[in-house]
Amino acid sequence: MFTLHPRLAADTFAVVTLPLCEVRLMNDRRFTWLILVPQREEITELHQLSSTDQIKLLQESSDISHALTETGAIDKLNVAALGNLVAQFHWHLVARSKEDPCWPGPVWGCGNAEPYGAETAKNLIARLRKIINKEGKYES
Amino acid sequence: MFTLHPRLAADTFAVVTLPLCEVRLMNDRRFTWLILVPQREEITELHQLSSTDQIKLLQESSDISHALTETGAIDKLNVAALGNLVAQFHWHLVARSKEDPCWPGPVWGCGNAEPYGAETAKNLIARLRKIINKEGKYES
Repeated sequence: MFTLHPRLAADTFAVVTLPLCEVRLMNDRRFTWLILVPQREEITELHQLSSTDQIKLLQESSDISHALTETGAIDKLNVAALGNLVAQFHWHLVARSKEDPCWPGPVWGCGNAEPYGAETAKNLIARLRKIINKEGKYES
Repeated sequence: MFTLHPRLAADTFAVVTLPLCEVRLMNDRRFTWLILVPQREEITELHQLSSTDQIKLLQESSDISHALTETGAIDKLNVAALGNLVAQFHWHLVARSKEDPCWPGPVWGCGNAEPYGAETAKNLIARLRKIINKEGKYES
């Protein structure tokens, strides 16, 4: 049975659950930073997912990327699966701005996370859900 | 017409050309680090590729990932599309070792590249080509 890694659970907020992935918001207000975690057991590498799941991941990643571009001005989207610290496969989608404190370097290993205030996180998550559900594609 | 970005060309060696991507080896002997560049014009983000091309990219990425795992002991594969410095879409596949100088941090922005000796690069590229072509899938 799939269980979200406790470290990922602790560092993020739940946004939505898609057919393949749990979508979660990193608790770091320096960036709008989402992670997609396929609900599959014991996957640590992209190429371990079945072809069908890889295609699903890309579809969900594309849809969430489009949603991210609607949350604000974005200069670049960073997409990555690293897993050096937490092996459970997770797919990063990070909205980057030329004004962010880590630009043009990567976000991983750059300074310390700055947690959201409770109200700000709640509003951002509500906004993300609204954008993601807008086309009715993932509505339950 | 697709032309490889001059910065990417300068930092890498040609390995093979697949139906969608040029596969190139980063000239940095600290890691076995490949980049896949889809031969498409003016693509800067993954979600700008057509669904068909996204699926092709993942197939080629999976095949090259499997090849990479045959080149030596690998603790983790890092997969990413960043493009903060060079906007032309390119897909990183980096074989990571717990002994490498940047572990567990990301390779981007970590220290300086250490170029290969000419003979070492030539041998590694020949080995990669042999592994990639082994199953006859991409032979011309």
